[in-house]
Amino acid sequence: MSKIPYKIYLSEDEMPKAWYNLRADMINKPAPLLNPGNGQPMKAEELEGVFCSELVKQELDNDTPYFEIPKEVYDFYRMYRPSPLVRAYCLEEALKTPAKIYYKFEGNNTSGSHKLNSAIAQAYYAKKQGLKGVTTETGAGQWGTALSMACSYLGLDCKVYMVKVSYEQKPFRREVMRTYGANVTPSPSMTTEVGKKILAEFPGTTGSLGCAISEAVEAAVTTPGYRYVLGSVLNQVLLHQSVIGLETEAALKKYDIEPDVIIGCAGGGSNLGGLIAPFMRDKIKGLKNYRIVAVEPASCPSLTRGVYAYDFCDTGKVCPLAKMYTLGSGFIPAPNHAGGLRYHGMSSVLSQLYDDGYMEAVSVPQTEVFKAAERFARVEGILPAPESSHAIKVAIDEAEKCRETGEEKTIVFGLTGTGYFDMVAYEKFHDGKMDDYIPTDDDLKKSLESLPKF
Amino acid sequence: MSKIPYKIYLSEDEMPKAWYNLRADMINKPAPLLNPGNGQPMKAEELEGVFCSELVKQELDNDTPYFEIPKEVYDFYRMYRPSPLVRAYCLEEALKTPAKIYYKFEGNNTSGSHKLNSAIAQAYYAKKQGLKGVTTETGAGQWGTALSMACSYLGLDCKVYMVKVSYEQKPFRREVMRTYGANVTPSPSMTTEVGKKILAEFPGTTGSLGCAISEAVEAAVTTPGYRYVLGSVLNQVLLHQSVIGLETEAALKKYDIEPDVIIGCAGGGSNLGGLIAPFMRDKIKGLKNYRIVAVEPASCPSLTRGVYAYDFCDTGKVCPLAKMYTLGSGFIPAPNHAGGLRYHGMSSVLSQLYDDGYMEAVSVPQTEVFKAAERFARVEGILPAPESSHAIKVAIDEAEKCRETGEEKTIVFGLTGTGYFDMVAYEKFHDGKMDDYIPTDDDLKKSLESLPKF
Repeated sequence: MSKIPYKIYLSEDEMPKAWYNLRADMINKPAPLLNPGNGQPMKAEELEGVFCSELVKQELDNDTPYFEIPKEVYDFYRMYRPSPLVRAYCLEEALKTPAKIYYKFEGNNTSGSHKLNSAIAQAYYAKKQGLKGVTTETGAGQWGTALSMACSYLGLDCKVYMVKVSYEQKPFRREVMRTYGANVTPSPSMTTEVGKKILAEFPGTTGSLGCAISEAVEAAVTTPGYRYVLGSVLNQVLLHQSVIGLETEAALKKYDIEPDVIIGCAGGGSNLGGLIAPFMRDKIKGLKNYRIVAVEPASCPSLTRGVYAYDFCDTGKVCPLAKMYTLGSGFIPAPNHAGGLRYHGMSSVLSQLYDDGYMEAVSVPQTEVFKAAERFARVEGILPAPESSHAIKVAIDEAEKCRETGEEKTIVFGLTGTGYFDMVAYEKFHDGKMDDYIPTDDDLKKSLESLPKF
Repeated sequence: MSKIPYKIYLSEDEMPKAWYNLRADMINKPAPLLNPGNGQPMKAEELEGVFCSELVKQELDNDTPYFEIPKEVYDFYRMYRPSPLVRAYCLEEALKTPAKIYYKFEGNNTSGSHKLNSAIAQAYYAKKQGLKGVTTETGAGQWGTALSMACSYLGLDCKVYMVKVSYEQKPFRREVMRTYGANVTPSPSMTTEVGKKILAEFPGTTGSLGCAISEAVEAAVTTPGYRYVLGSVLNQVLLHQSVIGLETEAALKKYDIEPDVIIGCAGGGSNLGGLIAPFMRDKIKGLKNYRIVAVEPASCPSLTRGVYAYDFCDTGKVCPLAKMYTLGSGFIPAPNHAGGLRYHGMSSVLSQLYDDGYMEAVSVPQTEVFKAAERFARVEGILPAPESSHAIKVAIDEAEKCRETGEEKTIVFGLTGTGYFDMVAYEKFHDGKMDDYIPTDDDLKKSLESLPKF
């Protein structure tokens, strides 16, 4: 076997031709979305007012293991995929660890993150359905950027509701979206009923992700020829993101590499769910016994400190209910929390797997995350996004444990994106102005009061 | 022959093992650097007070065609090289052109540009010489970022003098450099004699590249264990950047592709000189008749409107004199000029080749450049740096000519970097607040008065 290169690139021929639907192999299926009006599982025809028809099929299908990647999406993937699986030789050396560290780098496209994998798929199905455009929300801006790129490529209109505080504090993200032709509105806004209502109640509010979701959904259902799209949490998103895991699996097999631990950051679950999909399949089937670790911020700890229950997906309560590990839809992360990973809940698929014991979860404070990010950047050359750096932090911890024990473990983690638009947070970190706010038990008890009563 | 993929990646084995020194094959060699004191060619021992010894050798060597890439530099290259040569299928389709367009994408590393190719080489030779650190200047910030990364990797101290206006208006670039551990000082500063002198004379000045060079050189020669490094203009830089051209040549050969036109943006010449090196060799030898086009901003048009003469390289006149196409060291581009490509002169190598008729040059106004950038971004997915977009503009022009004539020309251009840190300029463009200031003949006449008198 030849020496493992710094970057394992698959050829275009080796790229996956189909997405893998982990639900098909799950023993306990994820709980269905419920209609908030009657508490009954949402039917396809109910969801089709909000989502594109093909995406509804993908959302509800717990049985079909593979969905062919449409040619148009595949062609787009070929512009930036396959993404490299990088052997972190320099980090290993810096850590003086016998561990072997690999990361799947999803930041090598201009949207700067893995979000593009699902954005192009969702935009494609909207276009195929003959729609005029799509609406969405964005917080830190990775998803909005990715969707703007995808829509611009397909000639589809794109309306983005951007959490007002990010709109104002991250003008560059907004400009990237405008470069790709998107229409970006700070949320809450006066363009929707739910926005007006929230502004009347809280005139000075700087918005939240849950509120922007409500506005984007309203805009979709009230504008002919539009549907709503979402960058995380949903089953369909995890399906599209399985391309990350499938490529990782293929790259590892190409060099006969057997991972011991697989680590990913987790906000709504899009990256983690995609990265682990084929590995979780083998674990469920009893073929492998990988450790799989979800890393979340200590300031928004849905898996580690939330409850597993049906909850609202948005502040305006216009969306279906989802069963998930959640902090309650009333939860808002501390203002000092940098980057994404700020959603109150977690993908139903991942929540079920976690509840079934297939996955560990750990939460980490943000100053530790930035320390790990800087350490990584200085030796590996990539400036990581704060979100991705949660996984870096735990990968480094694992590698340092190996240094103590002498174990030559193989660690694989997901590096979801680059931090070019997060320099305000890096600046705070450099200037010693970053701190760690961790919600108290009382905070969480209070936010959990927002759970639906039934 | 198999279909040409979207991205042609060389394997690590196919990466060039040596840099190519175009000077060895030039018929008229570039003019030597002169000592500003006595007007005599600079000797190696004179230059070694400023530059690392190995780099002085490379700077002065007009005969050796190949310099082996040191193993340490090669290992670093492997973290982000080979870079892809991309077939712009989507752009071709959008332009409805029969032309075949390829671009060599050098933005796929976290420094975001091609500057890293020379930064790691220069930092390596400094380290090998046992130095403690290096000093440099940076304008738009690409070079400073690249050098910070390289120094951080090698454990070398890095002092960057950043043009004050950029330091204040581009705080994020500054933070990236700090993330990589660099010491960043706004220039002019009170830390050098030349800085103090300039501040006394022009108290409100926001600095210039020429002034920052003077400060960085002074800091290097007055601090034991330090040398000065530069990201463009110098022969040694073009030598290191030849890795771009050599990889491009290998990728084209791999698929039997024969280019007709090769296009690069030109500020000091680092990217252009590197990209064209092997193609220019074949042109000089009469083996090929490629068109080679340098693209410069209309606001800083050294090749198209400058004179070919010996000039000062910096404002403080502490550096050797170089013979080059120049606008005079007193030239300062209009404040509305975005991005880099703002140096008053051009690499001596490229100046000589241009004077000998081997190369064309064209200047383009910046609003046209941003229009081309946005057009490119929307179909190719990459958000280009303003600098790189000069080449995009002319590549699109050439492809559109082919649409008219029906010619199936093969166009290759250099995409030097990404525009993540240039969103202020994109914002101005979107808001219609960007204009084109082009210096008048009188402006240039005046700035040329700063040429040395002898």
